[in-house]
Amino acid sequence: MQEVAIIGIGQVPVAEHWDKRLVELAGDAVFAALADAELSQVDALYVGNMMAGQLDKQSHLGALVSDWVGMRGIEAMTVEAACGSGALALRTALMAVASGIVTSALAVGVEKMTDTSPGETTAALATAASADWEGIHGVTFVGLNALIMRRYMYEYGWQHEDFAPFSINAHANGVNNPNARFQAPITAEIYKRATMIADPINLMDASPIGDGAAAAVVVPADLVKGRKGKQVIKIAGSAVATDSLAVHDRQDPLWLTAAEKSAKEAYLQAGIKPEEIDFFEVHDAFTIMSALSLEACGFAERGQGPRLALEGEIFTQGKIPVTTMGGLKARGHPVGATGMYQIVETVLQLRGEAGPAQIDGAKIGMAQNIGGSGATVITHILKAD
Amino acid sequence: MQEVAIIGIGQVPVAEHWDKRLVELAGDAVFAALADAELSQVDALYVGNMMAGQLDKQSHLGALVSDWVGMRGIEAMTVEAACGSGALALRTALMAVASGIVTSALAVGVEKMTDTSPGETTAALATAASADWEGIHGVTFVGLNALIMRRYMYEYGWQHEDFAPFSINAHANGVNNPNARFQAPITAEIYKRATMIADPINLMDASPIGDGAAAAVVVPADLVKGRKGKQVIKIAGSAVATDSLAVHDRQDPLWLTAAEKSAKEAYLQAGIKPEEIDFFEVHDAFTIMSALSLEACGFAERGQGPRLALEGEIFTQGKIPVTTMGGLKARGHPVGATGMYQIVETVLQLRGEAGPAQIDGAKIGMAQNIGGSGATVITHILKAD
Repeated sequence: MQEVAIIGIGQVPVAEHWDKRLVELAGDAVFAALADAELSQVDALYVGNMMAGQLDKQSHLGALVSDWVGMRGIEAMTVEAACGSGALALRTALMAVASGIVTSALAVGVEKMTDTSPGETTAALATAASADWEGIHGVTFVGLNALIMRRYMYEYGWQHEDFAPFSINAHANGVNNPNARFQAPITAEIYKRATMIADPINLMDASPIGDGAAAAVVVPADLVKGRKGKQVIKIAGSAVATDSLAVHDRQDPLWLTAAEKSAKEAYLQAGIKPEEIDFFEVHDAFTIMSALSLEACGFAERGQGPRLALEGEIFTQGKIPVTTMGGLKARGHPVGATGMYQIVETVLQLRGEAGPAQIDGAKIGMAQNIGGSGATVITHILKAD
Repeated sequence: MQEVAIIGIGQVPVAEHWDKRLVELAGDAVFAALADAELSQVDALYVGNMMAGQLDKQSHLGALVSDWVGMRGIEAMTVEAACGSGALALRTALMAVASGIVTSALAVGVEKMTDTSPGETTAALATAASADWEGIHGVTFVGLNALIMRRYMYEYGWQHEDFAPFSINAHANGVNNPNARFQAPITAEIYKRATMIADPINLMDASPIGDGAAAAVVVPADLVKGRKGKQVIKIAGSAVATDSLAVHDRQDPLWLTAAEKSAKEAYLQAGIKPEEIDFFEVHDAFTIMSALSLEACGFAERGQGPRLALEGEIFTQGKIPVTTMGGLKARGHPVGATGMYQIVETVLQLRGEAGPAQIDGAKIGMAQNIGGSGATVITHILKAD
């Protein structure tokens, strides 16, 4: 397989962008990525998006975004797996370039969630779960995660406060990310007193929605060997795995089988062990998801994700720093864009351009994007060349 | 690039499937394709779908369908470009296999459109057009095509009845397709007297919606060289091109630039001229679209698509038979599935398995799937090995 590299990245701040249409958000991220790559054109553009058809009354984003950014005519399409849509844009760009079908491609994730009523947005988000077994009962996404978290606490004996470090770490790191929706630290006290949403998930366990877009330009690695300018970052591992949409249908609702499978495949491709990962952009849609991902990816024993956090190993100086730019919790979670924000942040770290958020000596970074409550998991391992 | 072949196909009849959920329709097509390929498992599954999030309250179809067909865990995602979503599933499967990332993949197109109210379905379809410039005015898809057809008639001096052969041919061919929604011929009189929908488009100019699913299994061509059993069909050309979503924004609203571009690229890949195509599965969502596609693909002069039809060249014994299994008009147009129906029908013809619809000596077939009013066009050229 043709080795593929990321040569440009771009993003817009996650916010309530009421002054920008969806296509403008995507365009701004694309223009930034092209400028960063010192390119004006690519052969194909893949858009990761979940809800534009429902919330913006606009499907068909591939052609729309291509035209908007001045590349009318190029190959384009939308890819979707709920909140995992963003990383799938990169995955598709990788396949397109690796196949030799195109020699340059843009992956852009975009979502606009704050122009609609909370009810509409919540209903659209619920389409990520099984309509027949979960949605039909009116269970929201936070409700589903609350059921998982409650069971996890019961099974492994954790208290709610044991999940605090995930949130505290994310917000501490968000302070250093100018594109984060929230850039203020929180304390254990704030975590504890936060408004309950769906017991045991409170406001500090849950990531905020938002409007946003993030993009990356990929090309064959050979093409940019010894390139001057921005550092070339290689895609050393890329894997997608799936699971049942409905949580009750899994052998163990407290184990992210798809996260384990896609991480193992990515480790194999990259030829590394989990210990060699310098930092991990974990999909912390909810604190419970951070715990489950860390376990599935081999960083913690089963049921012991919160221990890793309580021991400080997920913080910047720990063994496996996570959510180094704020994660979904502080950067924000514009669902179809999130996977691409994770990629952009991973590249910033590997280039040494993460500013005050920089992880010293970061050479290998992992990003894991999760669709639904673990039904689609995309893992990417990136390496500084 | 790794050469890729189709080794299995499957479909369900296009109908009002009120007794089947979307995942069951997709599953039935997948099971048929697997049986036809004599396989029980593939590495990845790509779903072409446009409207499940809006109409079925179900996004995230990749994982859902994979699980339903007994392949929980494999790579999966949804791809979308409005009514062009189906062919994009094949395009994505091709890229995945050609890149070497997977060695077998399923492409399945699926749509369920008749369980919702006509108003809901029409509104969902309108998201294929530009929400900002077209949808906002309340123009439906048939309305947009009516504007194009009216202008075309004015510009090139055609009468409404000149478009009759497209519809008559499609329905004549639909008689020979047991999976077609309509299997009865129509006369010039029926065409003329059909209910007006959006002047000049009447009921016989417009394709019917429907519920349906169609699928294909693809693998590297090398892997199945000299294979016993079903004939191997090669993907000789595959190309995607785009245009502006909004029709008014095109230099010439009567020319399908993206259709021309993707067809030319596909001819180049296949190393053939238009004259060498034995039959053409054209995207006849409306009779005007058939005319425009035939012109853009080089089968007729600009503005002369209806002449080709009036001279009988689009019929089974003509120079370029189109909609040989009924097309969108008679087979039906379950939008996200349509592109895969076209592929399945092309394979049937090339294998000589099209029954009474068989085009004698068909060796090279072309299928063109159009998203929106020409904003995304996917052209595939298939060859009997």
